[in-house]
Amino acid sequence: MDFATLFGVLIGGGLVGGAIFMQGVATKTSPTVFLDGASIMIVLGGTLAATAIAFPLKEVLRIMTVLRAVFKGSTGPTLGALVDEVIDVSNFARKGPKELESQIGNIKNFFLKDGVQMVVDGYAVEEIRSILETRVEYREERERAEAGLFKAMGRFSPAFGMIGTLIGLVYMLKGMGAGGGEDMASAVGTGMATALITTFYGALMAYLFFLPMADKLNSQISSKSTVQNLLTEGVCLLAMKKHPLIVREKINSFIPPREWKRET
Amino acid sequence: MDFATLFGVLIGGGLVGGAIFMQGVATKTSPTVFLDGASIMIVLGGTLAATAIAFPLKEVLRIMTVLRAVFKGSTGPTLGALVDEVIDVSNFARKGPKELESQIGNIKNFFLKDGVQMVVDGYAVEEIRSILETRVEYREERERAEAGLFKAMGRFSPAFGMIGTLIGLVYMLKGMGAGGGEDMASAVGTGMATALITTFYGALMAYLFFLPMADKLNSQISSKSTVQNLLTEGVCLLAMKKHPLIVREKINSFIPPREWKRET
Amino acid sequence: MDFATLFGVLIGGGLVGGAIFMQGVATKTSPTVFLDGASIMIVLGGTLAATAIAFPLKEVLRIMTVLRAVFKGSTGPTLGALVDEVIDVSNFARKGPKELESQIGNIKNFFLKDGVQMVVDGYAVEEIRSILETRVEYREERERAEAGLFKAMGRFSPAFGMIGTLIGLVYMLKGMGAGGGEDMASAVGTGMATALITTFYGALMAYLFFLPMADKLNSQISSKSTVQNLLTEGVCLLAMKKHPLIVREKINSFIPPREWKRET
Amino acid sequence: MDFATLFGVLIGGGLVGGAIFMQGVATKTSPTVFLDGASIMIVLGGTLAATAIAFPLKEVLRIMTVLRAVFKGSTGPTLGALVDEVIDVSNFARKGPKELESQIGNIKNFFLKDGVQMVVDGYAVEEIRSILETRVEYREERERAEAGLFKAMGRFSPAFGMIGTLIGLVYMLKGMGAGGGEDMASAVGTGMATALITTFYGALMAYLFFLPMADKLNSQISSKSTVQNLLTEGVCLLAMKKHPLIVREKINSFIPPREWKRET
Amino acid sequence: MDFATLFGVLIGGGLVGGAIFMQGVATKTSPTVFLDGASIMIVLGGTLAATAIAFPLKEVLRIMTVLRAVFKGSTGPTLGALVDEVIDVSNFARKGPKELESQIGNIKNFFLKDGVQMVVDGYAVEEIRSILETRVEYREERERAEAGLFKAMGRFSPAFGMIGTLIGLVYMLKGMGAGGGEDMASAVGTGMATALITTFYGALMAYLFFLPMADKLNSQISSKSTVQNLLTEGVCLLAMKKHPLIVREKINSFIPPREWKRET
Repeated sequence: MDFATLFGVLIGGGLVGGAIFMQGVATKTSPTVFLDGASIMIVLGGTLAATAIAFPLKEVLRIMTVLRAVFKGSTGPTLGALVDEVIDVSNFARKGPKELESQIGNIKNFFLKDGVQMVVDGYAVEEIRSILETRVEYREERERAEAGLFKAMGRFSPAFGMIGTLIGLVYMLKGMGAGGGEDMASAVGTGMATALITTFYGALMAYLFFLPMADKLNSQISSKSTVQNLLTEGVCLLAMKKHPLIVREKINSFIPPREWKRET
Repeated sequence: MDFATLFGVLIGGGLVGGAIFMQGVATKTSPTVFLDGASIMIVLGGTLAATAIAFPLKEVLRIMTVLRAVFKGSTGPTLGALVDEVIDVSNFARKGPKELESQIGNIKNFFLKDGVQMVVDGYAVEEIRSILETRVEYREERERAEAGLFKAMGRFSPAFGMIGTLIGLVYMLKGMGAGGGEDMASAVGTGMATALITTFYGALMAYLFFLPMADKLNSQISSKSTVQNLLTEGVCLLAMKKHPLIVREKINSFIPPREWKRET
Repeated sequence: MDFATLFGVLIGGGLVGGAIFMQGVATKTSPTVFLDGASIMIVLGGTLAATAIAFPLKEVLRIMTVLRAVFKGSTGPTLGALVDEVIDVSNFARKGPKELESQIGNIKNFFLKDGVQMVVDGYAVEEIRSILETRVEYREERERAEAGLFKAMGRFSPAFGMIGTLIGLVYMLKGMGAGGGEDMASAVGTGMATALITTFYGALMAYLFFLPMADKLNSQISSKSTVQNLLTEGVCLLAMKKHPLIVREKINSFIPPREWKRET
Repeated sequence: MDFATLFGVLIGGGLVGGAIFMQGVATKTSPTVFLDGASIMIVLGGTLAATAIAFPLKEVLRIMTVLRAVFKGSTGPTLGALVDEVIDVSNFARKGPKELESQIGNIKNFFLKDGVQMVVDGYAVEEIRSILETRVEYREERERAEAGLFKAMGRFSPAFGMIGTLIGLVYMLKGMGAGGGEDMASAVGTGMATALITTFYGALMAYLFFLPMADKLNSQISSKSTVQNLLTEGVCLLAMKKHPLIVREKINSFIPPREWKRET
Repeated sequence: MDFATLFGVLIGGGLVGGAIFMQGVATKTSPTVFLDGASIMIVLGGTLAATAIAFPLKEVLRIMTVLRAVFKGSTGPTLGALVDEVIDVSNFARKGPKELESQIGNIKNFFLKDGVQMVVDGYAVEEIRSILETRVEYREERERAEAGLFKAMGRFSPAFGMIGTLIGLVYMLKGMGAGGGEDMASAVGTGMATALITTFYGALMAYLFFLPMADKLNSQISSKSTVQNLLTEGVCLLAMKKHPLIVREKINSFIPPREWKRET
């Protein structure tokens, strides 16, 4: 569970809600003005409609899957532990294909397992490298498209917030002049306040939800690529039966020095 | 038929229309203020004029063709089915050029058919790869230019919305002061309401139409390139008479693991 | 003559002019408020001054040359015809350098002619490729700089529009309060109307002229690079005395399938 | 200690504080209006919440470590001194691995020491280059992610400033019309002044802190990469036992000519 | 002397100054409102403070050196003359190292001289190419960082203009309501006019100075890289003792065809 994501949404939402409540008390105005179904509908509905136009249906339908993944976070081992796992396997690789094959069942990482299977199946090093690199490249491309969907929603929601505000403003302006003085000021004020609610929703959705989500996705995608590039290099070194010392030195170069272990 | 695109346009338009109608009822103002031919003319006309300057005539004239393609969506087979088709052909490729040639008529994908024809014609693997890669590269470049046209319209329409609003504002401001108090407020309100309609149209066109269309086009272009890169790799493996097991392993790396099938 | 560019400028200008005229009639205000020499001077002058700082003098002086080229458009043959021309030459190339040399006078495309001359002069294929690719790369770089100049003017003109508006606003605000009620409203309105004219000019210049021009230039540059990359490939194939069938297949990959012809 | 960073923050803060104080005196208004805990809370809290969503927890927790590094600045030797150090080592490398090994203890730069150790351990030149280049690439990627965190905070803080202002504006507008004339103007003025404070904080945090910090980080990252690329080249030249004259000529090409020394 | 830069600054400044003066006369208001030391201090001071945070001290201190270089402009020979110089040297290179060495004193271009010296010293072609390309790459990187400094100042100055305006606005709004009718309008007008001055300075500095300067720097850097890439290619051809005809053909590809000369 990635608590940072959940806490960020809850704390950010709480701060904004608290500010609305406190200012409502201070100005003796009911904060219910901020709960406006029609405003939420036009901003969220417009954003979803634009997203449905902008992306293939099957990607839009994957939003919930992607969201769940973001909240769950990555549960994989640390980079240092991954290096250790590759070193363990490399010890068997040096003994021979049979010994290596017997270890496949113990490998938890799906990508590493697949790579080791190819080594066992006798693929050439360059074929293995090319297959694994293509996988990383296209996995990254597919996932960047999913992150792009959240980024697009982060661009669309302030736009529909503005569109909603423009609708409200036009009606408010049209009605100006009816009833003089304070009456008019009161009507103008209320009209404009309501009109601004959609701008508020558009900004809140974009900056507390869609855009940070897109950033998180992109950050998770990069981490995953680092892991898979490290494993690709590791599998190729296995296939070349390199000494564990050299394997560790080489794949250590993918991870920060503070996570390095030396072979003992 | 890509229903997501159509639904997005209809639902987005319906939501905005509904919001206009409902707020009109609530404020007892006729929603007809939002139907303004002159405003549509300056925003849409200005956008088209700028687009005519910005792009070669033959690309502007292709807008309708491109739009139809977006609404129709891609009707090609899934990535998994494409892999299967390549594997089928690879079985014949191993038997010999004659057997391969007899299968060409059964290949539906235009790009794959062309590639297999080159294998039959005895082109070298590197020549085939170079020809197919150049095709993918320049097809993508041509199509990105078309998507760029929609992106440009999405930049021009809010700009002409603003230009229209500036024209309205200048006249409204010039007329200020004629008739005091409520009369003036009413005139100012009406003038500004009308002026804002073009900003509304500019934003609506950009965010409910041009920009999501550009996104969709870019997404379709990327999918098509993935398909063609997969097929390029597949044709090269055919030409090298590789075993179907290896072909599947290699071209599987272009598609998500959940769509993989294993050779049985 | 590229009529789209000319029509775009005329129609866009006509639409904006028409909107100004019609709204002037509707509000019984003289549209002459939009003709303001001082406003044009500060926006256009400021934009040119910033451009003179931003770009080397000799590039600024080439603006008129570049503009004429944009309006004239490219008059070259279609991509399909270019392919045919290369195929024609490739038939002579196979006969020998003497036959090839006799054809040089008939080649209209400057870039192709130069390449064929190098083949006749006995340059190695890799030398020809390197020379022609460097030419394409640096030609594109020089021309992108010219397009960048228009893009910069499209960024500078709205900025100077805003600077002009700020100057007007400051004076208008300073004068506020002199004379009460309607008098003041009238003065404020007129002051602000005049101040906004520079914003209007800045936006109009940028979005109806500089930015679409930059887009057009970039689009022409890309087309030219496609042509030259096609010809580079073609000249290299000539130098290798490849069969016209293979030459056509290879250079066809640069152009859209709907413009392909097959060798008969 | 990087005094420029500290001075920038202090002087920038002092200038803004001074401007607030001086204008407070000039308008006979208490500058305490700018000290508003609730405003700081919503802008800083919202920014941190969005950042917690956008980035992995362990990167957010590293903010303080990164900040300290920025303020401390890089204390490494100049590029010219680094070149000298490599030349010194290259003299021992030519004598043999034993002489080289005896020098390792004297090398202060961690990256150079590691590289020389690999030379001593007998790694092939291409292996050393590949290991060191991977280290540079992934170190840069990790550090760019940290700089991206500050950049994101610089995007989020003005957004939450605007969200806070919208909340204030809505309440102020809702309350309009209560009490006529000057009373209302006073209430509107105070309400809007308070609402704008969050915009002020958002802009100040972004432009005096987060964005310049992100720039500084990126600049430090580039410097570090230049140093490490220089050292990678140097270590490879050591491993090839090149003459110090050639080593200096080659690695001098990474540094500005004004820092070059010639071998004497 | 690059007169375009100087003229741009003077004419742009003159136009803005003239517009301020003329509008001051037209509205019978003293233009001295635009001379506000405190406003200049907060915008320029804030920009410099943010720059001091954002960039290493030694780069900030180089601003004046860089500025002088921009105003001085490049005084090097034209591209055509450079090609001629390389051809001259290539004639000596074919005769032998001794003849080549005797010419080094006559070479004015520092980069070419260094390259020729390496040829004389007997470096291998690939070593020369690698050394010179690294020099070009890192020189460009260092200079892009300097241009980035001006670009950053162009982003910071409008931001501090806005921060200054927010400070002024808050005080003006706080004071609203004191004194009724025209008095208040006058106070509000004056307060807002003063507040807007910082926005005006921020925009003027950015668009008439920092951003065009950054563009000019980037344009000079690209020109310099073209020159150095041309010379790198030329030196490598010298080292290979290629015939002047081929040298000219090859390095002509870096420059526009209208500057080509043919060997006679």
